[in-house]
Amino acid sequence: MPSHHIVSAYDDELKHLTRKIAAMGGHAERMVDQAVSALVHADPALARKVIADDLFLDEAQRDIDDRTILMIARRQPLAVDLREIIGAIRIAADLERVGDLGKNVAKRTIAVADGLDPTSPFRGLQALADLALTQLKDVLDVYATRAVDRLGATRDRDDQIDAMYTSLFRELLTYMMEDPRNITPCTHLLFCAKNIERIGDHATNIAETIYYIVTGEQLPANRPKEDKSHRVRIGPS
Amino acid sequence: MPSHHIVSAYDDELKHLTRKIAAMGGHAERMVDQAVSALVHADPALARKVIADDLFLDEAQRDIDDRTILMIARRQPLAVDLREIIGAIRIAADLERVGDLGKNVAKRTIAVADGLDPTSPFRGLQALADLALTQLKDVLDVYATRAVDRLGATRDRDDQIDAMYTSLFRELLTYMMEDPRNITPCTHLLFCAKNIERIGDHATNIAETIYYIVTGEQLPANRPKEDKSHRVRIGPS
Repeated sequence: MPSHHIVSAYDDELKHLTRKIAAMGGHAERMVDQAVSALVHADPALARKVIADDLFLDEAQRDIDDRTILMIARRQPLAVDLREIIGAIRIAADLERVGDLGKNVAKRTIAVADGLDPTSPFRGLQALADLALTQLKDVLDVYATRAVDRLGATRDRDDQIDAMYTSLFRELLTYMMEDPRNITPCTHLLFCAKNIERIGDHATNIAETIYYIVTGEQLPANRPKEDKSHRVRIGPS
Repeated sequence: MPSHHIVSAYDDELKHLTRKIAAMGGHAERMVDQAVSALVHADPALARKVIADDLFLDEAQRDIDDRTILMIARRQPLAVDLREIIGAIRIAADLERVGDLGKNVAKRTIAVADGLDPTSPFRGLQALADLALTQLKDVLDVYATRAVDRLGATRDRDDQIDAMYTSLFRELLTYMMEDPRNITPCTHLLFCAKNIERIGDHATNIAETIYYIVTGEQLPANRPKEDKSHRVRIGPS
């Protein structure tokens, strides 16, 4: 039964692909979690670990890209299998980028560590990261289970992340106004907050890709909301 | 000669794909150019135009995604044609993101417009944008001509962009230290500068994709340099 053998080898390749994506997802989540922890607890050793860990995601994405091209060329997949493969390429790119954003947060640990007086922005940043990580975890669960009906909640949570980011942006500007010594650390925290907000966007991208894999349809292009930080203007008191 | 007909229709589809990518590239360049112009000359009408223009890139990317899937499913391309198609998906994603970054710069026009005393950061931002746009234009030329031997210069220019960005980051922090009224506009300019630096990264991604399309090989993963802004610490004078 050669055709049975081919199909079964192909299934194995698809399973390998989804396992690899799941491994990338778990790795990216851990990196972001540890990056925020390194930043909040001023832990440069943990920050260095996160920076080193990023290599895994770079290599995994490259491996997925190579594998998928071979799968398409050899197996000539149709319809749902093709969507599965193209979807894996997209999700791997999003997860690789999530790792980059986590690495960039870790890199700011030293610049943030000294000089910041108020600890309140750390709480805000941690809350933002918790929400973004929940978002990422949820879409990876949907990728594993294919329960696309749960994707609506994902989009709603993205709005919450945007609102929390804009509020943190405002808070950080206020600290900068209050004391010039806060300017350098708060600027780096602004970029950390932006990175975490972007992680939420990548989770939304992944949600859209999963929807496309399962249904063959694309979700409408325009997302209902966006962060409003570009409008924030705060004058000195 | 049915096989001749099939090949020729396929060639037409590939040509359409490369033309569409070229159109996206020209559109993205113009958006970034006009976004920086709107910001530097405090021109909200031009900013609104840029924001509206982004829709074209969103739709073009969606169109390319749909078309490429159909091409793979119907034509079952091998080797170089498959790389061409997968490459188009990647480049379209990079160009769509360049448009988003341009749009985000345009959105900050109002918040930057009032309150900024020194005009020097505008010169720095314009210079950074000019370099990033040259970079983008060059890789799009290589996409059109396939002259991959010119890609080395692209990577070198990415290092220049990173160095110029880090210097602008430092300059903007200094203005914020000098006068609290500069904090809001300079924070928005920091994000604009970061967006433009990211456009350089997307140009580098596109360069890597073109290399892959033409040679079938991937350029080494680790880029030699990165921006050093995450290390910048400036204390009040």
